[in-house]
Amino acid sequence: MYKFANRMGEVSSSAVREIFKAMADPEMISFGGGSPANESFPIDEIKGITDKLLSENGHQILQYGITEGWKPLKEAYLKHIVHPKGIKGTVENVIVTTGASQGIHLLADAFLEPGDVVLVESPTFLGVFSTFNKYFVKSVPVEMDEHGLVMEDLEAKIKEHNPKMIYTIPTFQNPTGRTLPLERRKKVAELASQFNVIVLEDDPYCDLRYSGEVLPAIKTFDQTGHVVLLNSFAKIISPGLRVGTVLAEAEIIQKLTVAKQGADTHTATLTQAICAEFLEQGLLPDHLKKINAMYAEKLHTMITSIEKYFPEGTKFTKPEGGLFIWVELPGEPDVLALFERATSESKVAFVPGIHFCKNPDDGIKHLRLNFSSSTPEKIEEGIKKLGELFTKDFEER
Amino acid sequence: MYKFANRMGEVSSSAVREIFKAMADPEMISFGGGSPANESFPIDEIKGITDKLLSENGHQILQYGITEGWKPLKEAYLKHIVHPKGIKGTVENVIVTTGASQGIHLLADAFLEPGDVVLVESPTFLGVFSTFNKYFVKSVPVEMDEHGLVMEDLEAKIKEHNPKMIYTIPTFQNPTGRTLPLERRKKVAELASQFNVIVLEDDPYCDLRYSGEVLPAIKTFDQTGHVVLLNSFAKIISPGLRVGTVLAEAEIIQKLTVAKQGADTHTATLTQAICAEFLEQGLLPDHLKKINAMYAEKLHTMITSIEKYFPEGTKFTKPEGGLFIWVELPGEPDVLALFERATSESKVAFVPGIHFCKNPDDGIKHLRLNFSSSTPEKIEEGIKKLGELFTKDFEER
Repeated sequence: MYKFANRMGEVSSSAVREIFKAMADPEMISFGGGSPANESFPIDEIKGITDKLLSENGHQILQYGITEGWKPLKEAYLKHIVHPKGIKGTVENVIVTTGASQGIHLLADAFLEPGDVVLVESPTFLGVFSTFNKYFVKSVPVEMDEHGLVMEDLEAKIKEHNPKMIYTIPTFQNPTGRTLPLERRKKVAELASQFNVIVLEDDPYCDLRYSGEVLPAIKTFDQTGHVVLLNSFAKIISPGLRVGTVLAEAEIIQKLTVAKQGADTHTATLTQAICAEFLEQGLLPDHLKKINAMYAEKLHTMITSIEKYFPEGTKFTKPEGGLFIWVELPGEPDVLALFERATSESKVAFVPGIHFCKNPDDGIKHLRLNFSSSTPEKIEEGIKKLGELFTKDFEER
Repeated sequence: MYKFANRMGEVSSSAVREIFKAMADPEMISFGGGSPANESFPIDEIKGITDKLLSENGHQILQYGITEGWKPLKEAYLKHIVHPKGIKGTVENVIVTTGASQGIHLLADAFLEPGDVVLVESPTFLGVFSTFNKYFVKSVPVEMDEHGLVMEDLEAKIKEHNPKMIYTIPTFQNPTGRTLPLERRKKVAELASQFNVIVLEDDPYCDLRYSGEVLPAIKTFDQTGHVVLLNSFAKIISPGLRVGTVLAEAEIIQKLTVAKQGADTHTATLTQAICAEFLEQGLLPDHLKKINAMYAEKLHTMITSIEKYFPEGTKFTKPEGGLFIWVELPGEPDVLALFERATSESKVAFVPGIHFCKNPDDGIKHLRLNFSSSTPEKIEEGIKKLGELFTKDFEER
């Protein structure tokens, strides 16, 4: 009966729904999600902060705010996150978003026309496919190697497709955990400038680093205003607060502001103010130390368990941070069938790699494992069960 | 340099920005906004609730939530707001949105194609023009009389334009304060069903009633799933929390959920849980009694001041609730010029009626006055100043 718009027909979220359904089973050991650990949230600090904010400034916190975002948060973000990383910017260069996913949506609104091309990593964050599909744009996959985007293929695809945008997660990439090296970061910024392409640098995991050297954002090398940096408080404070940021040229921020006005007027002031106060009280560095130590142990447990239990010939990434490991099984596995068996028989969930790929070949032997949501004990138990299933399957093939 | 999408060129927010600029002046008496009174917010209750929520359930409140919304809020909304009004529905019929404005946006996403027609009241909420323009749809104004939408014109416009959607604010309408009578509410639901048109019933003000009888929502008369009801906690608890709801057939809610997944994943759990707990603790009825008494006094002051100070021949609405009065000045006033003089010379702000109209003639002699944001003393002072300006202008014409 209802005459829904065509754009809705293009949008599928079934892969995500399957995963969520599997994860909702309380008996399941889930490596399928992408959530921070429940035990990582600074509940007491947020309780104290909220009480203070409402006591001191309740009228303003509960009133309508401006679309661009709570000014103390924009200032605190610049002071505590942007400037220490050697990136320039003023409050005119920042808009606060309702989670980083809104940032992607607003940028699509501002830039994308039907028929446009967006270059994406292959594999990439599966949420961008449904967002970009809604705008009737073509997502063209760019080759990755173990260090992320391959520059030769990126340049070739830019020349071939004249894309409007490049979407990249350069640090501890979702789903691979890969990190783009310094020279390639510079090169991405150069190519963007040379060919007048917007780079959407989605960097929610950069502060979850457990080893290795900190790398500058692509935005650091942006001389011409082509790089748009998305950050998020989801992984470093709390995803439930729905607070992210976009850092870009003021002209872009103005367009995003108009788009956001229609989207949700502004992000909840209370959750913005919580993030601002968390930064201003100087709580972030110690909090990161604490949660990174916890995640490092989980990552270590998962790596050693994979080495111990997965079939010989398995390849996998050993990221220096983030939330994900990308596994390639040996031979010609049917990963979708293995997902069915893993969730129903072994009661362990993961995400089949194919869901992250526009080009199915790039993920057909692969799976994404998340290590943040389980305890080290559950990680070993779950990986052991998966290893038994995969080994049996491998030997029977 | 930037190649922005065409949809951004269609979007203008200059009228809103002018108003906000005028309102930002601390010396200004502002009747220009649409915000609830600062002193209306239940700060202490929210402080207690937040403390309780974080203490008892912090891990879940701060973690990712599901796109459809925090289930206790959907249940509390049904139990305390929907069912007492005689409207049916289960949690499958509800999605929580980041403010009611997101609800409009998601419905546009789900239903509107370029070239579609949406029927709107004339005058109407100015925010919908930019939202609908972004989708390249045509907003066709429908005639109103002192009781709201004129049914004959609505039916004629439906037949003429075969619209996809009718957008209406039936209770204490923005900007006029008008309320659609019972029989017309039934008729709107019938016409929607007969001609297969979606009615977007935007009803954020219905609980701000200071006199007169409560009227059932159009949704109450919906036999065929054509009416979509938007409610909001902005005016009854706090706009800064950014929590609204959509009540509709489950099939529509599913589409809105897919649209919301890409838009912002979910609304902040903390702010949703605050609204849920506020309802569950039974705080809403007494809170409404308190704020409605306060607003009734402000409304009364504004009405008596207009009668006292505005030039003879002025017509204006005397609403039974809401936040706005709609004024028609006598003769042939230049309201845009009067706005300039009012804000610069008299230091009093309002919104020229023309900004709410697709058909300029419907608002050319008009202005919208908001009475919720000022004290009774400031209301009298501001209306007196406006009255002096308008009377002088009228006499000089």
